[in-house]
Formats: sequence, structure tokens, C-alpha cells
Amino acid sequence: MIIISMGNGKGKTTSAIGQIIRSLGHGFKVCFIQLFKGEGFYGEQKILVKLDNLIFFAFAKEHPCCVKDVNLDEVVNQCYFAMEKLEELVNSSERYDLIVLDEFNVALRDKFIDENKFIDIVKQLSQKSNVIVTGRGAPQSLIDMADLVTEMKEIKHPYKSGIAARKGIEY
Amino acid sequence: MIIISMGNGKGKTTSAIGQIIRSLGHGFKVCFIQLFKGEGFYGEQKILVKLDNLIFFAFAKEHPCCVKDVNLDEVVNQCYFAMEKLEELVNSSERYDLIVLDEFNVALRDKFIDENKFIDIVKQLSQKSNVIVTGRGAPQSLIDMADLVTEMKEIKHPYKSGIAARKGIEY
Repeated sequence: MIIISMGNGKGKTTSAIGQIIRSLGHGFKVCFIQLFKGEGFYGEQKILVKLDNLIFFAFAKEHPCCVKDVNLDEVVNQCYFAMEKLEELVNSSERYDLIVLDEFNVALRDKFIDENKFIDIVKQLSQKSNVIVTGRGAPQSLIDMADLVTEMKEIKHPYKSGIAARKGIEY
Repeated sequence: MIIISMGNGKGKTTSAIGQIIRSLGHGFKVCFIQLFKGEGFYGEQKILVKLDNLIFFAFAKEHPCCVKDVNLDEVVNQCYFAMEKLEELVNSSERYDLIVLDEFNVALRDKFIDENKFIDIVKQLSQKSNVIVTGRGAPQSLIDMADLVTEMKEIKHPYKSGIAARKGIEY
């Protein structure tokens, strides 16, 4: 099954993490690949790395839109390595029940990864695993291919009333 | 801060679980109260109960709409006990950084709990904790009071193409 969480609202990454916890609770094996999320900053990483049956990879730890002075070539390179990791998963005899590709929609939107190639890889991965792809900006080709698509829609957000990002809530 | 996850799409409970994991990763204390989720059925419960700094309560383990032969009086009673637990939290000297009230929106919608009383309790809890309330059917009074509201909007769902609920995905 291919699952997409998209939209401008909160809950895309956190719901994928909930999904990981749910799967691990059933003794399933999970592969979690994050883009643009610096290691050690997000609280969830500290818990997830301790859990059995989960492997975790982080690539392109910062996104140019959020952090100043990020080297764009480095980001593109890192996304290339992330795609190599996905190809490795396709060709591996190791099977994961769930593969979570966090913020890959953003990398697709910003053309850091090739859409056709990604679609092809996700199609292959979904033959043997449930695949979750998160992030704003999912391309229509991915939505068309997916079984389950949820838009997290912002109804109200405290940033707009001047409250800064909070530890334990946004990171 | 008061956070609401509502709507007909997937990701309300799972994003709250992700939020719990995020908070625990920062060493925060969390109280998780679920309605209508039978103990032991949902994968996440098996992981969450093992984690430090989290207390977990489940009330009204089934909802009349989902399970046949559920005693409605028993459900209402259980929701009453859940409200008693919330009042206990208000009056306790114990402080939780995050309190998650899973599916309470449904209990409000179905009048199993009193809206005014719940609003008052959540307001008091939010003085010392971040409070997340999930479930379809959040009343307008709760939305008005909340700082952050996300609607999980169903764009595509496999139930509609005849695929049954899957272990590790829906439970």
C-alpha cells in the first residue's frame, strides 16, 4: 500500500511516526528515511533510534528554505544519496513491512530528486512493503498511484498569532 | 497550548502518537488518555506502555458505532470516569508537559461527555500542559479556544476501493 500525507497543516511527519510506532508494536520491521531534519534536533529521533526492528537514515539535514547558508549542491548530492539508498532497498533481499520517506514530497517539489525515477522506485518498493511518503507538494503522479492520501489542512496555526516553534510540539 | 486534530482523514491518532514520541524524546512527561480503543489491539499501545515518562489510560474501549452489542450505558459511564480522570489531573500537583485526549471529539459529538464541562477542564489543563484533543467532530467552542487546529482531510481511502483495515496501518 502507498500512503501519502501532504498539505500545509501540522501532522504529516508526526502521523508517520505514529504509524512507525503502530507497526513496531506488531513486531513489524520498519525503515525510516528522513530528509531535511537535522539529526538530534527532533525529539522523536532520540526515542526511535532506541527501538528494535527500526533502521533510520537522515539525508540532506537542512533545507535551503529554512536554514541560511545551506549549500544547494550539497543538498542535491544528499538527495542523490537518499535515492541510492532507496534503490538499495529495492534490490535488497531484506524486507521491511513499512518504509517511511519523510519530506520526500518537498524534494520532489523542489526538483532535488527526479519525479519519474522516484515514482518507479516507490512502485517497486510497494510490491513488498507499505510505503509512506510525507511532505507538502506531493506531485499528481504520486497521488494518482497512492492508495491512501490525506491532506493535513491548516485551520488555525499559532505561528500566525506570533508564537514561536515549541520544543516537543514542532521539533 | 491547545491542539486539535479533526476531520474524516487518517492521521489524527497517529500524529498524536508522533507528538508523544517527540515530547518523550526531549525528556518531557506525557499523559495519554484514549477513548474507544480496546487495549492490546492497537500496535502503538504495546510500544508506548514500555516507554518512560508516559502514563496511559484507556476508557470506553469500544464505540457503539463500530462494535455490535456495546452497552451504551457502560460507554457513558466510562466517559464519566474519563472526565473524572481529567478533573484529577486538573487538581493534581503532578505536572505533565503533554496531555493527549484521543477521540474525545467523538465523545463530545455523541454527547457522551458534557461540552461546557470539557471546555472548562481543557482550559484549566492548558494552563500547565500542552493539550492535544483528537477525533472527528470537534465542537466549534473547542476550535475557537484552540491555538493550533488541523483538519485531516481524506483525499483517497482504500476502504472505498474495498481493501480491509490492515494491521500496522489502521490498528
